[in-house]
Amino acid sequence: MIVTGISNAVINRMPRYYRYLRDLSKNHVERISSTELSQLMHTTPSQVRQDFNIFGGFGQQGYGYNVQTLCKEIKGLIGVEQCGSMIIIGAGNMGQALVNYANFPKLGFQIKGIFDINPKLCGLVIQEIEIQPIDQLEKFLSQNQIQIATLTVPREQAQAMAERLVSAGIRAIWNFAPIDLELPKEVVVENIHLAESLMQLAFRRNHLT
Amino acid sequence: MIVTGISNAVINRMPRYYRYLRDLSKNHVERISSTELSQLMHTTPSQVRQDFNIFGGFGQQGYGYNVQTLCKEIKGLIGVEQCGSMIIIGAGNMGQALVNYANFPKLGFQIKGIFDINPKLCGLVIQEIEIQPIDQLEKFLSQNQIQIATLTVPREQAQAMAERLVSAGIRAIWNFAPIDLELPKEVVVENIHLAESLMQLAFRRNHLT
Repeated sequence: MIVTGISNAVINRMPRYYRYLRDLSKNHVERISSTELSQLMHTTPSQVRQDFNIFGGFGQQGYGYNVQTLCKEIKGLIGVEQCGSMIIIGAGNMGQALVNYANFPKLGFQIKGIFDINPKLCGLVIQEIEIQPIDQLEKFLSQNQIQIATLTVPREQAQAMAERLVSAGIRAIWNFAPIDLELPKEVVVENIHLAESLMQLAFRRNHLT
Repeated sequence: MIVTGISNAVINRMPRYYRYLRDLSKNHVERISSTELSQLMHTTPSQVRQDFNIFGGFGQQGYGYNVQTLCKEIKGLIGVEQCGSMIIIGAGNMGQALVNYANFPKLGFQIKGIFDINPKLCGLVIQEIEIQPIDQLEKFLSQNQIQIATLTVPREQAQAMAERLVSAGIRAIWNFAPIDLELPKEVVVENIHLAESLMQLAFRRNHLT
């Protein structure tokens, strides 16, 4: 993963800023200071200013930030609009749960296709999207602008499927398989490792003082 | 979250060590050096030794680690066996997908109960577990030893439900709602924030060099 000059910590905070700013905007809050925003985020005002300075500031010292403008700027930085078309590979429980997850379209992400290897699933329609056989993948990707592929296949198939996606031009993979994918460094991967998250929770629970 | 003397980075690596060691053990590998293990984990040998030294070492210098022993030690440290009983609050798409996720029982986590507010869902059986009405929650928790509660309810209900769980004695919450829960510091929370993960991926994709 190569993101010039921006630390992972900053990248990880951006969607949280966006979430809080969307809420503030919905609640008709017009302006917010870095102190108020930092309290919501459980961080410090200087952290907020430092984060925003990376992208040129967004506000005038002493006047706080205009919530709507800042929200739009951060949405633009995250680049939802340039990166909002996704497909799902694997229409099992998790794949179907993601298709049914109501939040993605609200945030600007559209699921354009679902693929599976299982002929029994192919042809089924979820949220108006028909599950396609996986051998249609390359044709579909050549005819549609897709920026993100979500991988919800069994672990044994994940690495090969990821390589197939990369060969077909995909540069961003949202990986739910419990495996560390080995891919060229120009491909970005974000993992949702459920079992590891659950074990981290168990560990913390067991080491509570 | 209070875990004395152990950094989050170390805690986050423990389940990955466990995953790799389980694989090695399944493949009948008997011994592994810190160098080999560090290559699998994409870290350094000194990092591996440093991590393990926190817990007293596990191995003899120069002889590498016994894979089976190390695997068992780390499983014990994570404390799956002391912390393996969980319930799921919210039997919607995500809750059901988690109940159907085949990996949890293999790792030692057992789902003992599922609760929902929706009377249409109550009484349905998933993986031999009947969905119960939420008003049975306190009674169930008083009669069963449950260590982890998984929260897959809508965002608007998450904070109140988390507080209700804490009142009923729960000290570990696996939270899927897109919200930062505000709970007493003796309660550990691990978040799966799907939308934020997807936005982090979008951000990285858009800032690729």
